[in-house]
Formats: sequence, structure tokens, C-alpha cells
Amino acid sequence: MPIRAIAVGRHDELTHPDTLKAGLAEFISTLIFVFAGSGSGMAFSKLTTDGATTPAGLVAASLAHAFALFVAVSIAANISGGHVNPAVTFGAFVGGNITLLRGIVYVIAQLLGSTVACLLLKFVTNNMAVGAFSLSAGVGVTNALVFEIVMTFGLVYTVYATAVDPKKGDLGTIAPIAIGFIVGANILAGGAFTGASMNPAVSFGPALVSWTWANHWIYWVGPLVGGGIAGLIYELLFINQTHDHLPSSA
Amino acid sequence: MPIRAIAVGRHDELTHPDTLKAGLAEFISTLIFVFAGSGSGMAFSKLTTDGATTPAGLVAASLAHAFALFVAVSIAANISGGHVNPAVTFGAFVGGNITLLRGIVYVIAQLLGSTVACLLLKFVTNNMAVGAFSLSAGVGVTNALVFEIVMTFGLVYTVYATAVDPKKGDLGTIAPIAIGFIVGANILAGGAFTGASMNPAVSFGPALVSWTWANHWIYWVGPLVGGGIAGLIYELLFINQTHDHLPSSA
Amino acid sequence: MPIRAIAVGRHDELTHPDTLKAGLAEFISTLIFVFAGSGSGMAFSKLTTDGATTPAGLVAASLAHAFALFVAVSIAANISGGHVNPAVTFGAFVGGNITLLRGIVYVIAQLLGSTVACLLLKFVTNNMAVGAFSLSAGVGVTNALVFEIVMTFGLVYTVYATAVDPKKGDLGTIAPIAIGFIVGANILAGGAFTGASMNPAVSFGPALVSWTWANHWIYWVGPLVGGGIAGLIYELLFINQTHDHLPSSA
Amino acid sequence: MPIRAIAVGRHDELTHPDTLKAGLAEFISTLIFVFAGSGSGMAFSKLTTDGATTPAGLVAASLAHAFALFVAVSIAANISGGHVNPAVTFGAFVGGNITLLRGIVYVIAQLLGSTVACLLLKFVTNNMAVGAFSLSAGVGVTNALVFEIVMTFGLVYTVYATAVDPKKGDLGTIAPIAIGFIVGANILAGGAFTGASMNPAVSFGPALVSWTWANHWIYWVGPLVGGGIAGLIYELLFINQTHDHLPSSA
Repeated sequence: MPIRAIAVGRHDELTHPDTLKAGLAEFISTLIFVFAGSGSGMAFSKLTTDGATTPAGLVAASLAHAFALFVAVSIAANISGGHVNPAVTFGAFVGGNITLLRGIVYVIAQLLGSTVACLLLKFVTNNMAVGAFSLSAGVGVTNALVFEIVMTFGLVYTVYATAVDPKKGDLGTIAPIAIGFIVGANILAGGAFTGASMNPAVSFGPALVSWTWANHWIYWVGPLVGGGIAGLIYELLFINQTHDHLPSSA
Repeated sequence: MPIRAIAVGRHDELTHPDTLKAGLAEFISTLIFVFAGSGSGMAFSKLTTDGATTPAGLVAASLAHAFALFVAVSIAANISGGHVNPAVTFGAFVGGNITLLRGIVYVIAQLLGSTVACLLLKFVTNNMAVGAFSLSAGVGVTNALVFEIVMTFGLVYTVYATAVDPKKGDLGTIAPIAIGFIVGANILAGGAFTGASMNPAVSFGPALVSWTWANHWIYWVGPLVGGGIAGLIYELLFINQTHDHLPSSA
Repeated sequence: MPIRAIAVGRHDELTHPDTLKAGLAEFISTLIFVFAGSGSGMAFSKLTTDGATTPAGLVAASLAHAFALFVAVSIAANISGGHVNPAVTFGAFVGGNITLLRGIVYVIAQLLGSTVACLLLKFVTNNMAVGAFSLSAGVGVTNALVFEIVMTFGLVYTVYATAVDPKKGDLGTIAPIAIGFIVGANILAGGAFTGASMNPAVSFGPALVSWTWANHWIYWVGPLVGGGIAGLIYELLFINQTHDHLPSSA
Repeated sequence: MPIRAIAVGRHDELTHPDTLKAGLAEFISTLIFVFAGSGSGMAFSKLTTDGATTPAGLVAASLAHAFALFVAVSIAANISGGHVNPAVTFGAFVGGNITLLRGIVYVIAQLLGSTVACLLLKFVTNNMAVGAFSLSAGVGVTNALVFEIVMTFGLVYTVYATAVDPKKGDLGTIAPIAIGFIVGANILAGGAFTGASMNPAVSFGPALVSWTWANHWIYWVGPLVGGGIAGLIYELLFINQTHDHLPSSA
């Protein structure tokens, strides 16, 4: 179960072994996730000559991200809560489920994991380009921003309903599948317009490695706004009881 | 577990906070579901020039709806029961598992969620057409009506067997996956003929936003008849004990 | 959990309400399964002009059968055990997990469900041909027979390991998914050669409605032999304790 | 739950019935897995004339392996722990979760299962070629080696986090799905470059039957190194308590 009892209040949390282990778990999970996700895009480029996206390519991207995110959330769930996404960490922070310091450790680990995944992909593909996220033809900045907001709202709302909510019950067992699959579903819609990132770490690694920063801010502002709104709404409306900050993680 | 203890009998249920929260949960779930589902159809239109549906496009539509409905049911399960579909609400009503007033709140919330999703899709895609459901060439009205009846029967029967039946046991854990995937399976069959709606809310939003009402009644009558029959059969034959109306939801 | 406590020994079992209800559950599950599975094949024929199978078409068939069988097994699991397949019923009989009479009721219900599904498909598609199973070019009778034996062995072995084995533990929760997905996996291999039936009921309905009986016996002998071997091996080697015939079903 | 209590320390383990049964379970699981996985590649060759891999073909390979490995792990989980892969067995050995002798029995059983699957595939497809793994154009030996290391690290890390870790909790229920799906995700990235084996047994059977040994060592060294690193890291960092070698299997 992701994000279980991860809100720590100790002042020594940055150097606490649990925090460091959680950061390492976020790093490894994001690396595995981005390696498969961005790698599937590079495989598509290798297999097609003109590189124009097709429905089959969109299905491949959707499945790669859905399957890999499900696994990435699962394997970090009991160590860090399985965020694998700065927008999820921000949504957890907004709802009072993670402290600022621990959240910063998570985000740094996620950005590092994505970057290392992209460097590895560049190496193993013999120096192929790691494609950065960009807007499709005919998609304006405001369109893309709202697209990312709505999709990330759905993702972080799913994290709250299936993993954070203390009343989740049996849903906790399938929470990682739900979290992976909402991303897979949204890619089938938004992938043809904004690339459907929903995750600043997923966009950051390819942007850094390919040094492509055009409209990069959209992939931060959109997910953080969408994730923040989801955290606020779910926490205020559906988690009624007083929120106790639990004393320790893991 | 969807539809757990949702049959309330109080006369003040319309204004009861639980009813309003359940309506909000249905609204958000349907919005997320239709945004990914109808959005995947618009992505297909963007990626293909001739617009003719292909097997790859059908697979994309199937996965988008299967994944997104699984998630939409999951995230509302503990709040509203996770109907996300007037045919499911009607099937629950026919079997005595939801009151009329609460059912009306659900259906209004579902129709609003679908409409807002379609308006958002129109905006984020820079004013692309939101495709309304329609009959394929060679498919008559009666064909389509029976198609929708049979497919929705399967969907609502699945809801009953995995989520409503008090004897469901471990099946409850995977109920949202089963509910999403029967829709995904049926789209691979019916998507090429009627669009495979199985859900009046899914058809209503696109029809309203694109103002296309040809044969729209089929997407209400078919699902409601199929869902009603499923609710009756399952309740009468497989849920033997006297049905107690439980005093409160959630 | 499929096939849980389904071995009844009473002489009045044929007329016992539980047996009739179990038969009805098998009928409905097989109908829903074949409607989506065979329907996906008819959708492929409608969407493609020359009708030659492609990898995308094979993926569509795989997903339709995997998703629909998972659901069909789930919704009958607590009533009949969720066989949905004469080869599974035969494998259960060989291993001593169902009586002959009850098994015959199951098989008749499965064949009826498949036939009604095909008649419905013929009607809702405005009289399109319901494609019967056949051998692809270059595939001999012995090849096909062994293909069906190996694939059905995998299917029924999966049923035993995840649903019948009393030591199954947590596996029982995901048993219906495993049973559906082994069929989906095998279709991606065998679908291009024999159609990958693994299920006499799935082959019988289309054969009867299209009156195509060429090589039809392969789709009975192969699955029954494969299922029987799986039942024997698993029962003898991995279920060690004395097998008590349980007094009642459900 | 795979790899549950499989570390046996008795000197008679090679002839112990439990060890032999576990070996048989590994043999059958690997046979079923390779039959569907390699069979899907042969189906692709049959359906396409030029044989160039396409995104749709990659999706088919991904789903066939993801679905079949999920099932193969499930059906052996309670008997052998469900390794189905020498790299998983090696990772378990490195972390102290299986003895050397028992591990050797597993690996032999896995190699035999893969070989028999390939021989069966050759027969049922009327003597089609069983395609051995090879490097795509433009992929060097070092590229491929690191590719297999990274992907297998992800796979074995997933096995540890969801199945071996005593703190896994509810994750154990969905562990086989996660193990299958990380392979499916990695195939969508690496399938276009190295074939994405992640499993020496999966590569060995086709290599032996087609007698193709070019670069075959990559498919042993890569997975064993990646699996070994994963086992070491997870065991040292995330499984803190003293590791008791449990006295018996099953």
C-alpha cells in the first residue's frame, strides 16, 4: 500500500536511515519506470521510418507506462509509499501526508532516477535520441496545460482513493494496478496531444539528456496544479477524521 | 467494493451529506472515465487521416475504457459504490439495492460528469469534434438495440456477481478490474457496430456537446433494459436471502 | 474461487436447485464469454477488407478472450465454480472434483450458452457469418491436435493450481485473472495456426450456427486430452491428501 | 507467493520429494511460458511476409510474455516459488534464499522446460523456425549486455520486493502479476534492440533447437549479473533482519 504512514515529523528525518532508504527506493522505482516508458518510445522510433505516431504506437506507449508504473509503485510501496512522481509527492504534501523535507528528498531522488534511466537508454541504444515531451501540432500552451492538469488530477485522486484513504479496505491490494492503469488510460487520450506526462520527473530526464526545454514548464505546472487540487479535494471532502501525523515511516 | 450497503431509506437522503458526497464521487469518477474513453477516440481521429476504424484503433478504445472504468469504479467504490453508469444504477434500483431518490442523484451526477469531460476535451484538443455514438453502416436500429442490451446485461450481471452479491468473498477484491474488463471485452466486439456504449452517461455527454441526437434513444433504452434484466435475474435467482435495506451508506 | 466444493455425490443432484442454478450460471457465463470472443472476430472481419489476420487482429482476439474469460470465470465462481469450458469440467471430473451427472449438466449448459451467443451475434450483426474454427494453411491435423492439447494442458493446469488446489492461499484471489490470461497468451501463439480454441464449447457454437464441421473433432479431442492430462498430473503429484468428496456445492 | 520458504539446508535435498516436485513445477511452468512467448513470435512470422518487427508485433510479444509469465509464476508459486528463470534463481541464491543444490535442480528444470517447449513449437507449426534471440542492427555487444543487465535488475528487484520480502504484506497477492508485467513493459523497450530476454532459459531453448549460438553468452551474463545485483541490493538494504534459512519448502 503506497503512502502508508509516511508523514514523519522528526527534525532529523533528512539523515534518518528510513528517509535515505525511501529516497533510494524512489530512485530505483523511477529509474525502472522511465527506462521502460521512454525506452518504448525509442523502440517505436527504431521500428518506424517516418516516426509518425500511430494507434499501435499509442497502445505500446500506454501499456509500457501502465505496466511499468504499476510495478514501480508496487516495489516501493512498503519502503517509500511508492510515489515515483513529484506530482504525487506534492499532492501528498498538500494533503498533509508527507513533510516538506522528506518530500524534497523524494523529488530529488525521482529526478535523479529519471535522468539516470535516460542516460542508460542513450547508452544501450547506441546513442539514439531520447525524445523530450512536446506539444503536437495544433495544441496551444493553454490547451496542453489544462490537459496535464485534468489527467494528473485523475492520477493523484486515484492515489488518494486507493492508497492514502484509511477507509480504502480491499482496494489497497489492487491500488498499484489502478495507479498504473489510469496513466495507461490517459496516455491513450493525451499521448497524441501533449505526450501525456502527468509526471515532472518523467519529463525532466529526457529534457535534460536531450537538452530540450521548449514548453518544459508545462510538464511541471500542469501536474503540480492537478495533483495539488486532487490532494486538497480528497483530503477535505472524503477523509473526514482529524489527520494525525504518524511518528515514523515504513 | 462497489454498491456496498448503499440502499438508504431515510427521507432526508437527498440533503444528507453522504448522498451529496456520493454524488460528487460519481461526478468525478464519470468525468475521469469519459475524459480518457472519449479522449482516446479523439486521439485516434487525430492520428489517422481517413478516420476509418481499424483493429488497432479498436484495441486502443478497448484498453482506454477498460483501464479507466476499472479506476473510476475503484476510486468511488467506498464512497458511492462506484456505479459510474445510469444502467448500473438502474440495475441496482431494480434489484432493490438503491432508493429512487439516491439513484436520481447518481444519474444526474453521472450525466454532469460526462458533459464536463466532453467540454474539457473540446477545450484541450483546441476545439476538435467530440464524436457522438452512432450505428455503423449495415447496422439496423433493432440490431443495435439488442447489441446494447446483451452487452449491458453482461456488465451489470458482472457488477452483481462480483460486487453486490453478499457471498462474493475474495471476488470483491478484483471486482473493479472485472467491471472494467467486461466493458473492454465488449468494445472489441460491439465497438465496430454500435460503438459499444453500455452506458447512457457515456453517450449523453458527446451527444450534448456535439448536438447529435440521431438514434440517441438506443443508448438509453438498450443499456437500461439490459441492466434491468441483469439486476432482476441475479437478485431473484442467486441472492436468495431476504433483502434487508441497510440504514446508511459508505 | 472456481471449482470450490463442487463435487456432489447425491443421487438427486440433477434436479437439485443448486445443480440447476450452477447450470444456469455456466450458461450465462459461456454466453457472455463467447459473445465477446467470437464477436471480436466478427468485428475484425467488418473492419478489414481482405480478412487476413494481422498481429493487431491477433492482439484484439487475445484481449477479448482474456478479458471476457476472466470475467466469465469470476461471475460464476461462487455458483458453479466457473468452468465455462467442457475441457475444464472434464479435467475436474478426471481429478475427482465433479461428479459425472453434474459434469454433464455443465457441458450441456456451456454448449447451449455458446450456441445462443452465436445466434445473438448473427442477429445483432445483421446476419454476418459467425466464423468457425479452422486450421490455417500449412497446419496439418496432427499439428493442430497437439497444439490444442498443449495449450489446454496449460489452461487446465492453471485452473488446478490457482483454483482447485486446497493449498492455493492468496492465489485464489487472482485465479480468474490467471485463467483468462493464459488463454489470452496462448491465442497470441496458437491463434495464427489453429484459432486457439482450448474449449469445445467455444468451437461448437460457431460450428453449429455456420454448419461447418471440417476438423471439428480436433477442437473436442485436443482440449479434452490436454485437460484430462492436466487434471491427472496435478491431482496425483501436487494434491497429496486424500480427496474428500464434499457433500454440497456453492 | 513465489520463493516462500524455499531455502532448504538438508543434505538430502536433491532426492527429497519436495525438491523433485519443485523441479517438476519449474519444468511445467517454463514450458507453458516459453510455448506462449516464443510461439507468439512464430505467429508473427507467419502473419507477416517481410518479417520486420512492427509496433503491433511488439505489443503482441509483450502481452504474450506478460500474461504467460504471470500465469507461470502463479501456478508454481506454492510448489517451487515460481522462479521460471535462472536469473531469478541466481538472484535468490545470491541473497541467501535458495541453496546451491536446489538452485541447480531449478535451472536444469527451466532449461529442459524451455527446450521441450521449442521442440513442441517446431512440431505443431509444421517445422517452422524457432527464432533465436539476436541483436538488432546497430546494437553492439556492450549495448546489449547493459540492456539485459538493467532490464533483469528490474525484474529480480520486483521479485524481491513483492514476493521475497517478509514485509511484503498485501503485495504478495498481486506479486505474480507484477512479475509478469515488468517483463511485458521491458519488452516494449528492449524487444526492438536485444529481444529483451531477461531469462537465460528463454534464450537457451530457441538457441539449442535452432542451433544458433551467436552472442548467446550475452543472454546468460546480462541476466545473471542484473539478477545478482538486484538480489544483493535488496537483501542488504531493504531486508534488515537476520536471515534464517528455513528448514523446508512448500
